[in-house]
Amino acid sequence: MREPPVKPIEWLGGSVRIIDQRDLPQAETHVVLSEAAEFADAIRTLAVRGAPLIGIAAAMGVAVEAGRWAASPWDVFEAKVARAIGDLEATRPTAVNLSWALRRMERVLDAGRARASPAKTAGSLEDEALRIYREDLDMGCRIGEIGADLIEDGFTVLTHCNAGGLATSGYGTAIAPVYVAHSRGTRLSVIADETRPLLQGARLTAWELKHAGIDVTVVCDSAAHLMLASGKVDIVFVGADRIASNGDFANKIGTYGVALSAGANGVPFYVAAPSSTIDVGIMTGDRIPIEERDGEEVTTIAGTRVVPEGVKAANPAFDITPADLVTGIITERGLFRPPFEIG
Amino acid sequence: MREPPVKPIEWLGGSVRIIDQRDLPQAETHVVLSEAAEFADAIRTLAVRGAPLIGIAAAMGVAVEAGRWAASPWDVFEAKVARAIGDLEATRPTAVNLSWALRRMERVLDAGRARASPAKTAGSLEDEALRIYREDLDMGCRIGEIGADLIEDGFTVLTHCNAGGLATSGYGTAIAPVYVAHSRGTRLSVIADETRPLLQGARLTAWELKHAGIDVTVVCDSAAHLMLASGKVDIVFVGADRIASNGDFANKIGTYGVALSAGANGVPFYVAAPSSTIDVGIMTGDRIPIEERDGEEVTTIAGTRVVPEGVKAANPAFDITPADLVTGIITERGLFRPPFEIG
Repeated sequence: MREPPVKPIEWLGGSVRIIDQRDLPQAETHVVLSEAAEFADAIRTLAVRGAPLIGIAAAMGVAVEAGRWAASPWDVFEAKVARAIGDLEATRPTAVNLSWALRRMERVLDAGRARASPAKTAGSLEDEALRIYREDLDMGCRIGEIGADLIEDGFTVLTHCNAGGLATSGYGTAIAPVYVAHSRGTRLSVIADETRPLLQGARLTAWELKHAGIDVTVVCDSAAHLMLASGKVDIVFVGADRIASNGDFANKIGTYGVALSAGANGVPFYVAAPSSTIDVGIMTGDRIPIEERDGEEVTTIAGTRVVPEGVKAANPAFDITPADLVTGIITERGLFRPPFEIG
Repeated sequence: MREPPVKPIEWLGGSVRIIDQRDLPQAETHVVLSEAAEFADAIRTLAVRGAPLIGIAAAMGVAVEAGRWAASPWDVFEAKVARAIGDLEATRPTAVNLSWALRRMERVLDAGRARASPAKTAGSLEDEALRIYREDLDMGCRIGEIGADLIEDGFTVLTHCNAGGLATSGYGTAIAPVYVAHSRGTRLSVIADETRPLLQGARLTAWELKHAGIDVTVVCDSAAHLMLASGKVDIVFVGADRIASNGDFANKIGTYGVALSAGANGVPFYVAAPSSTIDVGIMTGDRIPIEERDGEEVTTIAGTRVVPEGVKAANPAFDITPADLVTGIITERGLFRPPFEIG
């Protein structure tokens, strides 16, 4: 496997180095985490963010904590590791990948109980955390290879939010096809929606594409529609937070509007996400709950209040895009085209 | 005529009081302008903004300057007033209402030359400036009355940017129906798109509606689509910067995306603008030029750079909405429904 284009997280053996994403794009700050409480802080404060990356970081946090207590008696070891799992899980209760990764670590801890060897179990926990990390790299590469086949020389790709390397182990989902196409020598440009309110597109997608030497232009979210209508965009790639069995999907607020404009202007619109994003228990998008976040994310930008005191803001974090606006869904298992019957 | 809901500009007799819109919403600062150079500064620095208001302010600036020189010989008077017209016109070369208002003032100055009485001509210039102001109030009231008939009790209105009182003499265009409906006792709420990059919705529309005691909620531009899809919006009103004969129109960037979502979800979408916005010389929207503004408006928010250094931003200020997405166009002359053959 090639080196990923960015390294938001790196296993150092007994500790982990992360990019503190709160400082991007002004500064690339690296922080070393060496106990579970530091991982929990990093996740809680959004120093690491992005559903896949949160899962990886939590698993590595458990492995680091296990290493710290590997010379202790089993009871102490087990209690410390179990507590780390609980503390990490409490950081971001809504992130699916977080509990998924921690359940995997918990199963390894449970399996170690029969032998009651802290050192051996700590080794197995480290193996599992690195397996989760490498599986994510594989997933990103596979999505990237499939998606890159859709990108022709000279294409301009539009994307919304950050479903890039910084949200994962390093390749991303929606951005992975861009990296693979670039590495194949395909000439391309990216238009990144700034993605209000938290500006993940302006801050993170722009940063990692510039870092990889890929041409990127930021636009206000509301300008994406003009870009699509005026022939400046050849293909759209977005990520997904949850995909229903019929292909309807939830993603960062604004994705639905982009899909409508792509559809109205004949621009292909692709969703790229790990297959774990597919929720087979949900048939249609209207069953996906939408998280409402604090209105202050809208009313205050960079410390300055931009909305009058006493005026409220609504801040839905996601919207639902109906399957009939989706040209194709890319997972590590392949490219699905409508009618979607996935999961 | 009732008092307008806000007073962004007031004739004091020999001077003019404005609200400095750069300080909104944090502070309501009133500034008195008493010579043409101060008016030019106010327009250039966006202390007053909004196409109709710029025209009114420029006309009043000419009238104030004329008053200052009313006791001088005709040649001095004429030179000073002509220079004020030239200086005011140079402030915002693309604003149509600015040159339209200044041409009217120029014609009054020209008509005064035969009599060569500075005092009488200064009086006529004051009359003309106040006529432009009152015509705008009348226009806003008329649009408001027509539009208010479309707002039923309990409605939620969505609007984009600020086509409100602060952009005009006090009633606005797209917001005028809201004010009139409110004054009739119709219960209603407004959702204001924040309108990146300059946040006129968050800063100005929210401020003036709160000031008028009307319920308002701010959303990120990208959340408008979810609001429209989820049944939270009953009707959309937007302004226009230029309307082609076939009903295609230019308005603040993002308007086209709102129109697409309104159309896809069966929400009526109305354009409200003075009839002077109709450009009979342009048949279709694709002939309307789109102003590209400085990318720094996107990359830097409230003094903080949010896009990595070295990454560019595109910043189109307007987009074109095709007539087939427009339910109706309201001007002071009436409500036009498709097929539009206006002008």
